[in-house]
Amino acid sequence: MDHLSQLKDTADKITSMEIRGAGRIAKAAALALRDYVESLEVGSIGEFNRHIENAAKLLVDTRPTAVSLPNAIRLTTQYTSSDVYEAKEEIINNAERFIRQANDALRKIGEIGARRISDGDVIMTHCNSNAALFVITTAFEQGKDISVIATETRPRRQGLLTSKHLLDYGIPTTLIVDSAMRYCMKKVDTVIVGADAIAVNGALVNKIGTSQLALAAHEARTNFLTAAETYKFSPNTIHGEFIEIEQRSIDEVLDRETLADLPELNVLNPAFDITPPKYIDLIITDVGAVPPGMAYTIIKDHLGWEVSEIV
Amino acid sequence: MDHLSQLKDTADKITSMEIRGAGRIAKAAALALRDYVESLEVGSIGEFNRHIENAAKLLVDTRPTAVSLPNAIRLTTQYTSSDVYEAKEEIINNAERFIRQANDALRKIGEIGARRISDGDVIMTHCNSNAALFVITTAFEQGKDISVIATETRPRRQGLLTSKHLLDYGIPTTLIVDSAMRYCMKKVDTVIVGADAIAVNGALVNKIGTSQLALAAHEARTNFLTAAETYKFSPNTIHGEFIEIEQRSIDEVLDRETLADLPELNVLNPAFDITPPKYIDLIITDVGAVPPGMAYTIIKDHLGWEVSEIV
Amino acid sequence: MDHLSQLKDTADKITSMEIRGAGRIAKAAALALRDYVESLEVGSIGEFNRHIENAAKLLVDTRPTAVSLPNAIRLTTQYTSSDVYEAKEEIINNAERFIRQANDALRKIGEIGARRISDGDVIMTHCNSNAALFVITTAFEQGKDISVIATETRPRRQGLLTSKHLLDYGIPTTLIVDSAMRYCMKKVDTVIVGADAIAVNGALVNKIGTSQLALAAHEARTNFLTAAETYKFSPNTIHGEFIEIEQRSIDEVLDRETLADLPELNVLNPAFDITPPKYIDLIITDVGAVPPGMAYTIIKDHLGWEVSEIV
Amino acid sequence: MDHLSQLKDTADKITSMEIRGAGRIAKAAALALRDYVESLEVGSIGEFNRHIENAAKLLVDTRPTAVSLPNAIRLTTQYTSSDVYEAKEEIINNAERFIRQANDALRKIGEIGARRISDGDVIMTHCNSNAALFVITTAFEQGKDISVIATETRPRRQGLLTSKHLLDYGIPTTLIVDSAMRYCMKKVDTVIVGADAIAVNGALVNKIGTSQLALAAHEARTNFLTAAETYKFSPNTIHGEFIEIEQRSIDEVLDRETLADLPELNVLNPAFDITPPKYIDLIITDVGAVPPGMAYTIIKDHLGWEVSEIV
Amino acid sequence: MDHLSQLKDTADKITSMEIRGAGRIAKAAALALRDYVESLEVGSIGEFNRHIENAAKLLVDTRPTAVSLPNAIRLTTQYTSSDVYEAKEEIINNAERFIRQANDALRKIGEIGARRISDGDVIMTHCNSNAALFVITTAFEQGKDISVIATETRPRRQGLLTSKHLLDYGIPTTLIVDSAMRYCMKKVDTVIVGADAIAVNGALVNKIGTSQLALAAHEARTNFLTAAETYKFSPNTIHGEFIEIEQRSIDEVLDRETLADLPELNVLNPAFDITPPKYIDLIITDVGAVPPGMAYTIIKDHLGWEVSEIV
Amino acid sequence: MDHLSQLKDTADKITSMEIRGAGRIAKAAALALRDYVESLEVGSIGEFNRHIENAAKLLVDTRPTAVSLPNAIRLTTQYTSSDVYEAKEEIINNAERFIRQANDALRKIGEIGARRISDGDVIMTHCNSNAALFVITTAFEQGKDISVIATETRPRRQGLLTSKHLLDYGIPTTLIVDSAMRYCMKKVDTVIVGADAIAVNGALVNKIGTSQLALAAHEARTNFLTAAETYKFSPNTIHGEFIEIEQRSIDEVLDRETLADLPELNVLNPAFDITPPKYIDLIITDVGAVPPGMAYTIIKDHLGWEVSEIV
Repeated sequence: MDHLSQLKDTADKITSMEIRGAGRIAKAAALALRDYVESLEVGSIGEFNRHIENAAKLLVDTRPTAVSLPNAIRLTTQYTSSDVYEAKEEIINNAERFIRQANDALRKIGEIGARRISDGDVIMTHCNSNAALFVITTAFEQGKDISVIATETRPRRQGLLTSKHLLDYGIPTTLIVDSAMRYCMKKVDTVIVGADAIAVNGALVNKIGTSQLALAAHEARTNFLTAAETYKFSPNTIHGEFIEIEQRSIDEVLDRETLADLPELNVLNPAFDITPPKYIDLIITDVGAVPPGMAYTIIKDHLGWEVSEIV
Repeated sequence: MDHLSQLKDTADKITSMEIRGAGRIAKAAALALRDYVESLEVGSIGEFNRHIENAAKLLVDTRPTAVSLPNAIRLTTQYTSSDVYEAKEEIINNAERFIRQANDALRKIGEIGARRISDGDVIMTHCNSNAALFVITTAFEQGKDISVIATETRPRRQGLLTSKHLLDYGIPTTLIVDSAMRYCMKKVDTVIVGADAIAVNGALVNKIGTSQLALAAHEARTNFLTAAETYKFSPNTIHGEFIEIEQRSIDEVLDRETLADLPELNVLNPAFDITPPKYIDLIITDVGAVPPGMAYTIIKDHLGWEVSEIV
Repeated sequence: MDHLSQLKDTADKITSMEIRGAGRIAKAAALALRDYVESLEVGSIGEFNRHIENAAKLLVDTRPTAVSLPNAIRLTTQYTSSDVYEAKEEIINNAERFIRQANDALRKIGEIGARRISDGDVIMTHCNSNAALFVITTAFEQGKDISVIATETRPRRQGLLTSKHLLDYGIPTTLIVDSAMRYCMKKVDTVIVGADAIAVNGALVNKIGTSQLALAAHEARTNFLTAAETYKFSPNTIHGEFIEIEQRSIDEVLDRETLADLPELNVLNPAFDITPPKYIDLIITDVGAVPPGMAYTIIKDHLGWEVSEIV
Repeated sequence: MDHLSQLKDTADKITSMEIRGAGRIAKAAALALRDYVESLEVGSIGEFNRHIENAAKLLVDTRPTAVSLPNAIRLTTQYTSSDVYEAKEEIINNAERFIRQANDALRKIGEIGARRISDGDVIMTHCNSNAALFVITTAFEQGKDISVIATETRPRRQGLLTSKHLLDYGIPTTLIVDSAMRYCMKKVDTVIVGADAIAVNGALVNKIGTSQLALAAHEARTNFLTAAETYKFSPNTIHGEFIEIEQRSIDEVLDRETLADLPELNVLNPAFDITPPKYIDLIITDVGAVPPGMAYTIIKDHLGWEVSEIV
Repeated sequence: MDHLSQLKDTADKITSMEIRGAGRIAKAAALALRDYVESLEVGSIGEFNRHIENAAKLLVDTRPTAVSLPNAIRLTTQYTSSDVYEAKEEIINNAERFIRQANDALRKIGEIGARRISDGDVIMTHCNSNAALFVITTAFEQGKDISVIATETRPRRQGLLTSKHLLDYGIPTTLIVDSAMRYCMKKVDTVIVGADAIAVNGALVNKIGTSQLALAAHEARTNFLTAAETYKFSPNTIHGEFIEIEQRSIDEVLDRETLADLPELNVLNPAFDITPPKYIDLIITDVGAVPPGMAYTIIKDHLGWEVSEIV
Repeated sequence: MDHLSQLKDTADKITSMEIRGAGRIAKAAALALRDYVESLEVGSIGEFNRHIENAAKLLVDTRPTAVSLPNAIRLTTQYTSSDVYEAKEEIINNAERFIRQANDALRKIGEIGARRISDGDVIMTHCNSNAALFVITTAFEQGKDISVIATETRPRRQGLLTSKHLLDYGIPTTLIVDSAMRYCMKKVDTVIVGADAIAVNGALVNKIGTSQLALAAHEARTNFLTAAETYKFSPNTIHGEFIEIEQRSIDEVLDRETLADLPELNVLNPAFDITPPKYIDLIITDVGAVPPGMAYTIIKDHLGWEVSEIV
């Protein structure tokens, strides 16, 4: 397989969702670019620029809504030299740094977030977020005596995975149905969830139900944290773009039999909802704990987007 | 079977939950008292009083937390005469009036509540409340073009029953998971739910998740109604009593296999939660549409409780 | 003109809006009933009852949405005797008492409301309410050093009438456009407005803009009072009825020339809006200062409606 | 001392504050009236009426702002007979019933309020209220494992009395300065305070700082209860009257030396503040636990005030 | 006319308001500086610096409260070279870039903002803002099926201009009086208004009534956007300066006749009000959609102000 | 004493609290570093780096929770040259600039903050903050007619110091107990307090009671400002660190005698509380007036912390 084929192969795997998950997609794209550049043999910088542009476009187009993809490609393809060999070097270094940081992001988030957990805390979490779990387990491994309330997270019940993960660590865990969030909130010290994306105004896109949980936390003066790798911050939202809420299959909610019984029943199965920034106390990222209002700064300073070039 | 045996038989059926549901329990108790009184043959009013008191106590003790039971017995046993035959007559009339009104309550609630539904409204409901459904179907039968969003209502998924009931009427219905309440709220005109009990301060005891729904409605300036027969108003709360939140079996939440896999998992499965009165716009009862602050007046005027006799 | 003709004459004048205004309509109806009864010569109580019922219906039907009309008729036609002459007497007394109380209502409201105004207060008012003005002028006549901010109240600019009325009393008055309510609110001590109707849950139906003013007062922790004669409380709302918001003519908003220039322009000109009870501190009535949650009690105790007879 | 002298003697003691405290004042007035009536020897009912009226006025005028005084006198002097001997009998019975109920009020409040306290609760209280303390100690004596946070309550530091009282019962007690209310609130389950007066709209007049505490409880979704004997409900507020906030001596805040050092320093020392009803969950009275919106009903039904006679 | 005269001529036209409007003022100032510099013939850089400083001061002083003026001059006069010819070149380039960007700002705002408008949306707007209208018409031209509610905007009724503009595009438009904002809000999807200035904390200075509209949107969970060119961000507010609210002529509110009738009437006619940042979801600028909390960053990064040099 | 001894001497004085107060500590550390560097005679840059690192560590370790200490040391030790003499020069310049700016910070804060004070304002302040007092006295010296309400600030009653300071300037001052904050709030135009630290999300750490005051200001739509030197912004909070709330001695709250009387009494005496950013309108710093959401930018741009190096 030649170098372009390999890149296309990665692109296909992202399209077909063989490669999935914000982190894995991002790292695969950076790696594919690195490998492609390494083997690229061109004479002029102009030709080189065109090749890189095309490769970047090819990758970005695989999943137009994946928030981590443009971030990975952007950071990887930022080179300044007009000498082809130096430019190659820059891209390879960029790709490797990106992968290294992505690999290290969860550990950093765990350490930073664990500082917000105190001994004796009751923590509530929703769905099954690696980043949120890193925060909880890091705090536990520091010897803090904590317990967790995990929501079931219908329709796919990721709360069971979360419960299993926490119980394997020995962390006392209680499962509740999603409707019981507010009922349990008065006794909770901190809510911590993951993030599918963070918009420019600090709004959090995450598993359906998150905004309800944040609202209940806000009502009870309970801290609400989200744990998000920097590559989850969405640069497109600076351009005013909405983050589209994916509607998922009815099958996740109803089994075949029930569907057959109720053929006229409409089912709405949104994958995510949007939590307004006013309900979020802090975003725990791999570059620090920042308030939601700082999302724009993260996008500008840590992801390298120049707002002036938009539109 | 003699007359006391019959009353005891009803009591047993309430205890064993062969007779269940707030309305059915209340009517069975009133009927049992009527039958008992009818066949009761005593000489003095003193003896009569004692018999009635014992019968009432026997019935109340079957389900100490059933809110409709003391209301039915109270209303039935309010007699003023000191002549045994007249007193009997009073009790029989009371019982029959109570049963008649209870039978008619849903129709009245339907008519009163339907006035709060406008043509074109999108209505959200939770769980499977007869009273709330009467309001919706009455409005639909009046020719109003409405549609309904029904929540799934984990763990027992009563939202499927609700959906089936509404679709049978031809009302367009959309099912959502409980976590999607807030996501859908901005487009909802009115939320209407049932009631397990109404406390003296107008707080609503209802299926777990109701308070979360009310909070989301409040946040979006959406009307929130509850439909409650008068016998759902809880007189004991005047005495300061909490309404205890029943914790139900883990089996409702997890199947056996999952439980076996996660033996250390704690599951909290509250049947109800409490919605504070500030999130409730109106309570639709069979004697009118009243604000939550009027609960005390309903208890006093329509259920006949004298607060001065408490403690 | 015979006695029935006279009653019909009054009915016609109410229909044609020759008689208008909540107070005037109510008193005219009570008077018409009194006169009609006085001249009525019938033998049996059954016949008498039928006549009264018909007369009442005839009057109520003239303006189905006028809130004071059913109150006046209800209070006037409450008789208990089954002796025709005594029943006549009762109705005549009822009518006269109603008229006397209605005539005295503004004075009482003025005295009760003035107690809520302190020396040095800045008061804001909206539209041109007699009851609200009575409160303000009574306080001023008690020697309190007050000033008033009057909103213009588009489209009919009743704020000019209000300003003139207050300046005639010598009360310093400032006019603002309706958009400046929030701008001025921080320096206001008390907002006081009138009422077109009070619903069973204490919601206030009043001139468009009132709910916005109440919202701004609530945001700034400023007291918000409404002054309402008891006959403004709407008994139909107990039955769940909405108070319909009248849409008024476009001509009030745009002159002919502008309309001709913009033929496709849609204009929405609602006469009233609804202020939720949570934004109202007290309702100043002629029987006392009551919180909005007491509306049901006023309707029951002071207007004589039995909720049990509804539907 | 003749009978009128005795009544005047009581009046003087109330004026001079030899008799002080809402409960003691009320009972003294009822007793004085009873004794006066007992010894009163008059012929005609007209003369009797005049004597009673004068006696009532004499007592009411002693402390125009004492909320319990008019309640005690009102309830005592409600007689219906036009026979002097029967009227005397009524008054004597009224007085004795009032005193009996007043004596029993704290015990009833304790029992009713204790039902709102759960095992394991952390309770916060402000100042030194007998009624609030009865609730706490009753719950403790029922075996509930509770602890209390008591605020210091500057300037007179009644929190020390409260702490001593609770520690004598063996209840774990923590003292904080008034500024630390919000800091501690997240861990509090229920706040309970006393009442100097309850206004018709359910607003609570109580020790300065109470409204701040209620605001902090509201922010954190913590229950806020006030314990108030029914004679604390203020009938005058129906007439629109403000409850005046007494300004107390500077000496309570600053010692002589400091005052001498800072002669230009102004000191504002309000005795009370007003907590709006929206921050109050329940009022624990001797006739039941009622929401603040029910204050009007308590004044009407339990204190016997007819609003129609006002102004 | 020599080069300085031309600059003074522009200055005079700004002072006399012959040149008015934030954008036009800013561009005129940049142009005047460019022309002035072009023709400036000086030897030393020191002399050059002094001339530029004087020219800048002369222009800034024309309208001390115009927020766009100091921004235009600042951006134009930022040169780094100490060679006169290079410095000239820099200033000319700066001026031309500023003018180019200002000319393009509305188009960019339109494109960015239109992404926040969805098919089927009902939009509310206030006054007559070019930037807000660009957002709406851009969305419409993208084929989105939208409709607009325009407020009248007393006293100058700019809502009529807005309505005409939108109807000319074929966009369905409804006019309402300013008092009807809250009445209509429940059905609105997005509110979008313009900006006179944005303060450092993201507070919005805009036409009187804007803050009321934002409050009503916030109450109903409706998105609230403001469209603002970057030169509307006010650097002086970093120094703590208030943005003064201009009071405009009484004549705008009342005609001569009414004024003559009511000579003692005070009229308050504020041109603007201030909307706190917590009620603003996003600011649509020509460099992206940013949350209000980012105002400081815009001022620093896009307008070139160094906070360290202040005071 | 050699140069290292001098540095250790300063360190000891900070540890022993001979040098105390955020500003004094920071300046002492900068000065100690300057003196140390000045006298340092080393050959290689490597050796120099090690010495500086050790000196910095020695100073930081003296008071791990002092927020100004790491800021002073960070700003002082930022040198870029790898030439020892140049690096020395840089450090000396850094130290002197830091000290100059710290000395000038209060004056700048006074000037910036005074712009937020208008003629006629009533200002409330808590505790005894130099920065807040500078704002007030600067406004007064500008001729603004202002008055101040100072809270007592138990337990140490710093409100008396504040009152004395203000009265010495001739500013009318009223003292209140801490519980009266909300009672007085409706008449207050602006609240201004100092800061012990500002966290990365703009949360304010300040004297116990501050968050209560902010809550009451927020409830009444009153502006709430905090005055904070830039060196009060806490860089560690970017790493997720909590700012620990110091618990101070019981003796501050109770005298010995009372303690002896109540040996089982627990006393909680937190020195600070945390005010959430949503209750803060502006932070007045020496580099401008910024919204709380900008704290991260201040830490990054003005204190020189690189978030990427953390963990």
